[in-house]
Amino acid sequence: MTDTKKQLFVIGTGPGDAQLVAPRALQCIEASSELVAYGLYLELLGNVCDGKTHHSLPLGEEINRARLALDLAASGKTTALISSGDIGIYAMATLVFELLDQQLQGRENHPEWLDVEIEVVPGISAMQAAASRVGAMLGHDFCTISLSDLLTPWETIEKRLHSAGSGDFVVSFYNPVSKKRDWQLNTARDILLQYRPAETPVVLGRQLTRDEENVRIIRLDQLDARDVDMFTLVSAGNSESRHIINGSREWVYTPRGYRKKLL
Amino acid sequence: MTDTKKQLFVIGTGPGDAQLVAPRALQCIEASSELVAYGLYLELLGNVCDGKTHHSLPLGEEINRARLALDLAASGKTTALISSGDIGIYAMATLVFELLDQQLQGRENHPEWLDVEIEVVPGISAMQAAASRVGAMLGHDFCTISLSDLLTPWETIEKRLHSAGSGDFVVSFYNPVSKKRDWQLNTARDILLQYRPAETPVVLGRQLTRDEENVRIIRLDQLDARDVDMFTLVSAGNSESRHIINGSREWVYTPRGYRKKLL
Repeated sequence: MTDTKKQLFVIGTGPGDAQLVAPRALQCIEASSELVAYGLYLELLGNVCDGKTHHSLPLGEEINRARLALDLAASGKTTALISSGDIGIYAMATLVFELLDQQLQGRENHPEWLDVEIEVVPGISAMQAAASRVGAMLGHDFCTISLSDLLTPWETIEKRLHSAGSGDFVVSFYNPVSKKRDWQLNTARDILLQYRPAETPVVLGRQLTRDEENVRIIRLDQLDARDVDMFTLVSAGNSESRHIINGSREWVYTPRGYRKKLL
Repeated sequence: MTDTKKQLFVIGTGPGDAQLVAPRALQCIEASSELVAYGLYLELLGNVCDGKTHHSLPLGEEINRARLALDLAASGKTTALISSGDIGIYAMATLVFELLDQQLQGRENHPEWLDVEIEVVPGISAMQAAASRVGAMLGHDFCTISLSDLLTPWETIEKRLHSAGSGDFVVSFYNPVSKKRDWQLNTARDILLQYRPAETPVVLGRQLTRDEENVRIIRLDQLDARDVDMFTLVSAGNSESRHIINGSREWVYTPRGYRKKLL
């Protein structure tokens, strides 16, 4: 073991807008010589990435991206593992710790990983970007559910959808659809409709905070997987969420209580 | 109606660390002449607040703070309504839209509010700060529950706790205790223990990202309201969350799936 600090930064860079990237994220990228990320994320960051070695593995290679980041950091090169949104929310951060855990249990052969210092830098998630664009969707209790049944059995997801319904949580769907998956979102809608009104507001936020941003507010019973793609965040209000229209502006907010006694 | 733009910024400034404040938040504060906030939030921001008029109402005066912000903006003064964390998550943003909604329904007498342009700037929430400090607690489906029964009946909260348990969500508690409330958190613990193991990791994050930061990782059955105060974020893992120890560092992560087939 050398006395050189081996450093891995695990960084979320927010929804896309450079004005929503935390200064700490930029500091950590600045301090790194190696950047491990899906290519598109780096384009949004611009100059700060110049002069650094980019390791750009394709989507689907997540576990190898986490391995590469640990390997590079363990070799003494200060490394940044980067994703958009919050890297701690359904993203790469958990894979780094899963690998460390495997090593601690003796199921990997990379003792050098255990010498790596890790700092996780949170970022503003797509869910928060969507909520802020329409007002205050997350004003009261909420949950997130990934609709991808690649790693979680559909029965588990379905049970969770019923729990979200019975608990009347505002629900944000991650991985709502993919090229191979299109029926889950409509099933999720039908389950929620068992618990909350058809007119419950739903926000579709596509390419949030980026040039191509498109935000739509629809009713829960109008939600259709055909209107949603991999770049869309879908959030459904709870039974008290309100869609209000003020001239050319429209908003969705979720009241912070169920008594409304203060107004 | 004049042709002057009447602007209200509704801004979350993150958990406390200046390096986690979004540049957009600072831009909006810079552009404002009036700042409406609980005093402590402004101290953390420093210089950017110099030369502006501070309107510092005490805690508990939330609705009046939202009214004041709308009034000031409607009078033509560019105004920033500020809170720590994400102002859209259990915070002031929803009160602004609740007031607008009341006006649109004719229950207020402030038509001038309807001319105010509103921009909401999200911030990094305490939940995300806690998760990043311990690794990747929010790697899979999660929910948030406020334990304050001031505005939400306890029966609703209790039902939601059972839903969080049956859905096996990672759970973050907002408003876990207050000077007047101490039994809710222990009841919440007991409900979760009906659904997940006693050794489920729980994170207590106090004064996150600030100088006095203190982060502890305990077991669910060790959670006790006496160890928690109003400045503490409490997050309980799901049944698969893992607490791992690597020398002097310890981490909590929640695997991103229930199959673990990739490792």
